[in-house]
Amino acid sequence: MNAEIISIGTEILLGEITDTNAQYIASRLPFLGIDLYWVSQVGDNKTRIIEVLKRAWNRSDIIFITGGLGPTADDVTRESIAEMLGEEMKIDMNLEKTLRERFGRYGMEMPLSNLKQATIIPSASSIPNPAGTAPGWWIEKDGKILITMPGPPRELNVVWQETVQSRLEEKAESVLVPRTFKTFGHSEGGAGEMVADMLAASNPTLGIYARADGIHLRLAAKAKTREEAVKMLDEGEVRIREIMGERIWGVDNETLETIIGGLLTRKAMTLAVMEDASGGTLASTFNDIPGSDAFFKGGLLASSDHAKRAFGVPSPVVTDSTPGTGLAKAMAEAARNFLDADIGLATTGSDDVTADNPFGTTFIGIADASGSRAVSRPRRRQYVTATILFELQETLLSMG
Amino acid sequence: MNAEIISIGTEILLGEITDTNAQYIASRLPFLGIDLYWVSQVGDNKTRIIEVLKRAWNRSDIIFITGGLGPTADDVTRESIAEMLGEEMKIDMNLEKTLRERFGRYGMEMPLSNLKQATIIPSASSIPNPAGTAPGWWIEKDGKILITMPGPPRELNVVWQETVQSRLEEKAESVLVPRTFKTFGHSEGGAGEMVADMLAASNPTLGIYARADGIHLRLAAKAKTREEAVKMLDEGEVRIREIMGERIWGVDNETLETIIGGLLTRKAMTLAVMEDASGGTLASTFNDIPGSDAFFKGGLLASSDHAKRAFGVPSPVVTDSTPGTGLAKAMAEAARNFLDADIGLATTGSDDVTADNPFGTTFIGIADASGSRAVSRPRRRQYVTATILFELQETLLSMG
Repeated sequence: MNAEIISIGTEILLGEITDTNAQYIASRLPFLGIDLYWVSQVGDNKTRIIEVLKRAWNRSDIIFITGGLGPTADDVTRESIAEMLGEEMKIDMNLEKTLRERFGRYGMEMPLSNLKQATIIPSASSIPNPAGTAPGWWIEKDGKILITMPGPPRELNVVWQETVQSRLEEKAESVLVPRTFKTFGHSEGGAGEMVADMLAASNPTLGIYARADGIHLRLAAKAKTREEAVKMLDEGEVRIREIMGERIWGVDNETLETIIGGLLTRKAMTLAVMEDASGGTLASTFNDIPGSDAFFKGGLLASSDHAKRAFGVPSPVVTDSTPGTGLAKAMAEAARNFLDADIGLATTGSDDVTADNPFGTTFIGIADASGSRAVSRPRRRQYVTATILFELQETLLSMG
Repeated sequence: MNAEIISIGTEILLGEITDTNAQYIASRLPFLGIDLYWVSQVGDNKTRIIEVLKRAWNRSDIIFITGGLGPTADDVTRESIAEMLGEEMKIDMNLEKTLRERFGRYGMEMPLSNLKQATIIPSASSIPNPAGTAPGWWIEKDGKILITMPGPPRELNVVWQETVQSRLEEKAESVLVPRTFKTFGHSEGGAGEMVADMLAASNPTLGIYARADGIHLRLAAKAKTREEAVKMLDEGEVRIREIMGERIWGVDNETLETIIGGLLTRKAMTLAVMEDASGGTLASTFNDIPGSDAFFKGGLLASSDHAKRAFGVPSPVVTDSTPGTGLAKAMAEAARNFLDADIGLATTGSDDVTADNPFGTTFIGIADASGSRAVSRPRRRQYVTATILFELQETLLSMG
């Protein structure tokens, strides 16, 4: 099936918003075995919309349309589709009822202009929109499929996830379902050698990607139904876990933050951090973990020598404060003591670059009841947080 | 002039990247008096690129193309344009020399494949790309303009700012130049009444916008040249400053952060902050201000009662620690004392919502040599930082 995406809205052509809907849809099509050839944006202008629609209808099997489903006169997506197909828009009693109830829940009368959001054409069925007042249309005619969805990204996402995705899966000859295993402690090449036989297989396929939070192994199974694909993934997962063992720290949407939050909570341990060069990023990271109240005791942003001393870093260490492992250890110990936490975590950085290390250096200190240690890592800005989290995770895991 | 934008790259159609280039260009065209009617994305496929190009050449006066200018075989934007126009690509000696020098600066030999980035066609002149190896083409033929630019957004931005913008301004019958005045202490309606006569004028036009950091007044002057427009803006600015006076805290790209950084530096005053609910955001904000080393003494993230006590908030205040103005004042005083700063700034929040206030409340404490004060504000997540910065700014300004 060859697909086409059309995003409708004058605000896109004025550069006021970026069309993220096209990417949202595009990124999901490969998993449905649908090839995307054309994407275009057009303003809220009926003549130009119809021109684009006619071309799409002639050259594509499936057409995705977002935007222009609002209640006002400038929203003409429905009218344009009806005219292109030579069909008449009629008010659907059920849609009207649903819409009136929606307004009623907010204690409002439905404005007359919203009535056009309750219209439908003969070749269309309605796509519910639980997140807004504009339902979509699912049109099947002359062997083509045309799907309209609301423009606000939040509404599009809900409509896609609750209806469009599964209806497309029913139509698809095959679905491709991915599962990503996140690992640490290997290079891309090293991980590749371990799973060499799986890399050579054609279904499920295995891809290897280097990311800020380690090497990702992405297994993707192609099958007639989602259930079959998931079964293949489950079998593949057994094999991958045999090979990679404890090196797998997470799957799919799991992040280092959520994993570490879980570890700290299970171990009933608390954490305090002190940082300078990272400027509060580390504290924010822990603070943002859901449930961090239970384990995160606080963060110390110690940009100045004065602040370091005030937080209990020994004065001689601060005075001789070239960033290094010594300072990182002292900061970690001070954070632990100052905030009475089980684990103190600290980071300081150096901008000094060398031919070997063009990024500067990040020093990471970790203190616990058994003492403190520190490591240095080349600083790559987007990797700093992941590097620190990995060190912390290793400490937590080594505590058994 | 009617314009069209074509973004080229298979990675766009696979949903791997969002096409932000189209928005970048689209948002600049209104200021050049250019109307944008069509935007489309197409993969690195010569047949489909030529189809899109032909349509654009027939219906649009000016065509902007980004992407597909790389050295590899899959980049076929140049080849497609040459074929569409029936022209032959030839290597330009000067472009080749520039390219070889570029590689030489990195101690590298130029790979043969890069040679095609030194090609040009008879109807094109070259657009320099100081940020990469792919120069653009500026084509004028049959009364049409076609401009190719590199796809990486950083390169596109440089090429646009250094060459394309000014060449388009020369072509434009008029330019529209905006200048934004950022104000505080007024409602949108209140500000509107003060500048009512300017709102009614047709050139320059004045627009009023409510933003997180206050009311913005955007003056936009239309003239034959940029110089004339700037002169009109200068005259308009005199008038706006007469009316709004000290309520204008910044112009165009100035942010509250840079203004406050400037105030603190000029007054040679230092700052320390303590926060809980905002989770390090406030400390990060100050830490990120260029030159903050000089005035920012450090941040205390005090999520827990224990941390508040450790930072010197009096124990009875912490024990009775319903977030409120009392706690905010005590936190501000403690931050000031603990880090020996001239000004202590603190924020704490409450999630309690009422019918009047569905957002919860942010409490802001400010302590200086003369004492401390605190205010409460409805919490709207994206406005919290701006609200706090305004309070700080007011304090700084009141110090004369």
